[in-house]
Amino acid sequence: MTKQELIQQIKIKKSFLCVGLDPDLSKFPPHILELEDPIFEFNKAIIDATKDLCVAYKPNTAFYEAYGVKGWQALEKTINYINEKHPEIFTIADAKRGDIGNTSGLYARAFFEELGADSVTVAPYMGEDSVTPFLAYPGKWTIVLALTSNQGALDFQTQELKESGDFLFQKVLKKTSQWGTADNMMYVVGATRAQELEKVRAIVPDNFLLIPGVGAQGGSMSDVFQYGANAQCGLLINASRSIIYASNGEDFADKAREEAQKMQAEMEILLQAKGLI
Amino acid sequence: MTKQELIQQIKIKKSFLCVGLDPDLSKFPPHILELEDPIFEFNKAIIDATKDLCVAYKPNTAFYEAYGVKGWQALEKTINYINEKHPEIFTIADAKRGDIGNTSGLYARAFFEELGADSVTVAPYMGEDSVTPFLAYPGKWTIVLALTSNQGALDFQTQELKESGDFLFQKVLKKTSQWGTADNMMYVVGATRAQELEKVRAIVPDNFLLIPGVGAQGGSMSDVFQYGANAQCGLLINASRSIIYASNGEDFADKAREEAQKMQAEMEILLQAKGLI
Repeated sequence: MTKQELIQQIKIKKSFLCVGLDPDLSKFPPHILELEDPIFEFNKAIIDATKDLCVAYKPNTAFYEAYGVKGWQALEKTINYINEKHPEIFTIADAKRGDIGNTSGLYARAFFEELGADSVTVAPYMGEDSVTPFLAYPGKWTIVLALTSNQGALDFQTQELKESGDFLFQKVLKKTSQWGTADNMMYVVGATRAQELEKVRAIVPDNFLLIPGVGAQGGSMSDVFQYGANAQCGLLINASRSIIYASNGEDFADKAREEAQKMQAEMEILLQAKGLI
Repeated sequence: MTKQELIQQIKIKKSFLCVGLDPDLSKFPPHILELEDPIFEFNKAIIDATKDLCVAYKPNTAFYEAYGVKGWQALEKTINYINEKHPEIFTIADAKRGDIGNTSGLYARAFFEELGADSVTVAPYMGEDSVTPFLAYPGKWTIVLALTSNQGALDFQTQELKESGDFLFQKVLKKTSQWGTADNMMYVVGATRAQELEKVRAIVPDNFLLIPGVGAQGGSMSDVFQYGANAQCGLLINASRSIIYASNGEDFADKAREEAQKMQAEMEILLQAKGLI
C-alpha cells in the first residue's frame, strides 16, 4: 500500500484508527472458546464489526506465538481474511524483529511474503543491516521502534548521547531516516510521551507515526494529535484492549464497535478541525 | 538447566560449542529436500552427528518463520527432539524478542512453555519491563543482546553516553545485570569485537556470554577466549553455517561433524591451557 492510498483511506473513513488484534483466550467470551478456531473466529468477528471505522489492523505476534503452531495458523488466517475481504485496510505485523542482515532478510520474507502483511515493526538496536533488508520490499513498510509507550522506554531510549546531546531515540530517528523514506518507513512513538512528539516531528516531519498507548495505557488522543499530526495527518493511533475486550459477553463485537466508533468520532473532529477532511 | 549443570557439561564434553540450527532449503543437500519434513530431518541429522561435541543448540527463529506454519512445526519438533534425546544439551531460541511487559510475558510463555527452550535471546531497546518477564521462569535463561557481531552494531550500541561516558552497550550491561543474575542471564557479544570483551567482563565477570561470529563472520576463537573466558569458562561460542553447510552432498552430516570436531579440539586445548579441565 502506498502512502497516498493510506491517506486516502483516512479521508474516506474519517479515521486514523488502528485496531490491535491481540487475542487472549483468558479474556475471550465463553461461547467463542467452544468454536474450532477461537482465535481466528474472535478476530473475524472484531474485523467484521470494525472494518469501516479503522484504517489498519495490528496483530501483535506474541499473542499468537504463545499458542504455538495453532497461534501461527490463526495469524495467517487472520491476515488472509483481511487481505481478501478488505485489501484497502493496512496490516501491521507487530513483531519487533531485528537481526544481522541475512537473518533480518528472512524475517522480511516471513512477514511480507509468507504472511502477506503490509508492514512489520522492527527494533533498531542492531543497526543498519538489521533494518535495511525490510526496506527492500516495494510497497511494504518498515515501522521502527523510536520511543515506546512503556516505563522501560526511559532505561535506554532517553539516554543522552555525548556527541550530539541527542537522546538515543533522536539518534535512532536521524540514522534510520537516512536508510528509508517517508514512503516506506514509519516510527513507533508511544502516546504516553505525547509531548516528545514535537522532538520526533522535528526530525521526521513527513513519516507516518504508529502510536500505541491510547486507551488502556492512558495516553490522550487529543495530545497526540496536537503534537504529532502533520499536514497529511501522519498518524495511526492504535487501541487494542479497550476495543477488543470492551465486553466478554456474546455482545463483544457490538461493544467493540461502540468503542471503535467513539474513537473514530473523536478522530473525525480532530481531522475536521485541522482541515484535513 | 542450572549454571553448574552447564559448566559440568562443558567439562565432560571438553567443549563450549553451540551449533546454530539455521535451516535454509536453498543450501540443503538435494536428497533431504525429497523427505516429508526436510527442515526437521536436516536438523535431526546435524544433531545426531554433533551431539557429543557441543553443549548447546541455537535455532534462530527467523529461519523457521520464513517457512510459515511448517517452519514453526519443524522448530517445535527440533526442540522436542533435543529435549527428549539429549536433555543435557542447552537450547537457545534465538528470537531477539522484546515488547511491553505483558506482551514480553507472552513471548516468555511462547518460548519457555510452548516451545520448551531453555533460553531465549532478548533485545534490550524497550528496557526493564520488556526483559524482566523472561526472568520470571525458574530454571530458564534470558540472553540479552549487548554488543552484536554485525556492522550495524556500531550505529547505536557503541554510541557514547553523556552522563557516564559509557558506550550504550556498557549501559545495557550495567542496567540489565541489576535485573537478573549470573544464574539466569547471559549476554550476546559478537566474536568480531573480541577486544571489547574486556570491557564486557569488567561489568559482568560471572555471566555466561553467547558469542556468535566465529567462523563464517570471521571472528577468532582464541581471541574470544583470551579476552572473554572467566574462571568457569563462561562462554558459549556459536557456529552455524561453517558447520551445518560444510557440505551439501549426502555426506553433509559427516562433514558437519568434522567441522564441529575441529572446533571442539581447539576448545579442548584452550580449556586445558586455562586449567579448566
